[in-house]
Amino acid sequence: MESCGIAIGFSDVIRLGHGSGGKLTEQLVEKVFLPKIGNSILNELDDAASLKIGDANIAFSTDSYVVKPLFFPGGNIGSLAVHGTVNDLSMRLARPLYLSVSFIIEEGFRIGELSRIVESLSQAAKESQVDVAAADTKVVNRGAGDGVYINTTGIGIIETRHPPAVRKARPGDLIIISSDLGRHGIAILCAREGLELETDLLSDSASLSALALRLARLGPALHCMRDLTRGGLSSALNEIAHASKVGIEINDSQVPIHPAVRGACELLGLDPLYVACEGRFICIVEADRADEVVENLKLDPLGQESAIIGRVTEEHPGRVVSRTAIGGRRIVDKLSGDQLPRIC
Amino acid sequence: MESCGIAIGFSDVIRLGHGSGGKLTEQLVEKVFLPKIGNSILNELDDAASLKIGDANIAFSTDSYVVKPLFFPGGNIGSLAVHGTVNDLSMRLARPLYLSVSFIIEEGFRIGELSRIVESLSQAAKESQVDVAAADTKVVNRGAGDGVYINTTGIGIIETRHPPAVRKARPGDLIIISSDLGRHGIAILCAREGLELETDLLSDSASLSALALRLARLGPALHCMRDLTRGGLSSALNEIAHASKVGIEINDSQVPIHPAVRGACELLGLDPLYVACEGRFICIVEADRADEVVENLKLDPLGQESAIIGRVTEEHPGRVVSRTAIGGRRIVDKLSGDQLPRIC
Repeated sequence: MESCGIAIGFSDVIRLGHGSGGKLTEQLVEKVFLPKIGNSILNELDDAASLKIGDANIAFSTDSYVVKPLFFPGGNIGSLAVHGTVNDLSMRLARPLYLSVSFIIEEGFRIGELSRIVESLSQAAKESQVDVAAADTKVVNRGAGDGVYINTTGIGIIETRHPPAVRKARPGDLIIISSDLGRHGIAILCAREGLELETDLLSDSASLSALALRLARLGPALHCMRDLTRGGLSSALNEIAHASKVGIEINDSQVPIHPAVRGACELLGLDPLYVACEGRFICIVEADRADEVVENLKLDPLGQESAIIGRVTEEHPGRVVSRTAIGGRRIVDKLSGDQLPRIC
Repeated sequence: MESCGIAIGFSDVIRLGHGSGGKLTEQLVEKVFLPKIGNSILNELDDAASLKIGDANIAFSTDSYVVKPLFFPGGNIGSLAVHGTVNDLSMRLARPLYLSVSFIIEEGFRIGELSRIVESLSQAAKESQVDVAAADTKVVNRGAGDGVYINTTGIGIIETRHPPAVRKARPGDLIIISSDLGRHGIAILCAREGLELETDLLSDSASLSALALRLARLGPALHCMRDLTRGGLSSALNEIAHASKVGIEINDSQVPIHPAVRGACELLGLDPLYVACEGRFICIVEADRADEVVENLKLDPLGQESAIIGRVTEEHPGRVVSRTAIGGRRIVDKLSGDQLPRIC
């Protein structure tokens, strides 16, 4: 490490937290990746890149999926790998067109299980109206994988002249969440640890494409969209506060959280603001359009719990602050460790 | 397995051979993947898909890289991950524009080594004139990976009205190899097994973009291109014979092979026709243009050993036959096991 002049905190090896979407991930990106492969597109750190090719504005996004366990209540790695990448395209208001799919499979994995995963992937692609246009399979030795890893990379077409972007939030804007927080992370955790909650909580993993495209008619009044995956709501808000150089204030009591998620978080000592979803987003819009957006989102089953949860401020740029139910204020920082790794 | 109605040979679990690019890979693709995610684009099984988006003809290709060891003479997984995907785009005569890059890193991997890999990836991207437009990092638990796996997915623009395709070979065409065969596979094998050859053999891993684009001026006289990766020359020729419904005949003595590669193959009992390259391709062209193609390729350092190695026949459609140096004939079948897994 010393020889190449890079020092990340006190560690010179990769830790699980480097993959958690929090501070360690950010350090890895900023110190190892961007100095070498950064450019004006990648440095934007949006959910999907926006590329002009010919006369088309194309959204382009990649994600590898390493979720553990492979099968969880409400989905499996196959459906998740479609939803995750389709949702990243949707966050630029792109209509998803094509996916590539690449499997890294561990020697000894049962072909019957692989087949179930491919079936779910296929079903999710049909529901999301995307075609798999390119594919690849690799096999690694027994003990050099964890069943199956999947990469999907997506291409969509941006049909708006005003794609939302992470740097477009402005003081006075209001922040809207598309529905309730944290089901995916808690469902994964329960499946992994064998915990049984009183209710049968399912992952929220779903394609956000149709829900997101409802917002296209806002035009330039729609400033930011971000899906709430690794690092949960806190990471999404912190990334926007940082990129847009604004402050963000949310009201804890307005964030919709299912009682089973809240109960599990209390039991396990987790902060729901950091728990991942795979079918939820926030959008940041001009204040006078916010009520209209909430009403519109509520018309869709995936947006039933939509709510205004906060606002963008001129004060404390780069910081996210939460007002607690009893009137206190606390800083909502980025995740600094690995609250819950391998949720996607 | 029985319950889902799929039976692949005598195995109901994934074996290393399923990733080798030979018969087992083909069975997995045809029995598990294509029935569920197949469509008119994917079923072509070309190196890259050809997609019409707006007024642009886009090539799109994905590959995950699981090479072992990560560092080998002549490159590492970072440079390989760029060359492999850029070359797949080049096989459609597309000019590579953008790559996505996704890392799956094992907990405990040294950040210094990761940094060297990213450096090589960056260097190879610059040489190939592609920008990294999207990226992702995941971390898996110690023991659930093998250092680093990389997925790259590429977008290129097809500037010809006559992109070569695997189904376009016609009887009478001649087959040209861009240079000598098998350096990558043998370099990997020696690095993996600690073998020392008399010469310092380096992998042939390189971007074929500029070399391939030399052939654009052939227009419709260029029928097929295929890079020689997993499964080597034999897989590429068998895939073309199968997709184009033609026979293929090659002359063993005309296939250029470096003496060190030939020596290693004899020593290890490998057939050089099955050994992988990562910087070589074959093209199939109308017979009266073949000499011109060879001369043209030889002007580039990567095409110095270019040669006509065989022809397309009406006889024995779907089969590849080789004439040996002593005048015999043998069938060159697809790889049926795993001669050399994890070479890319």
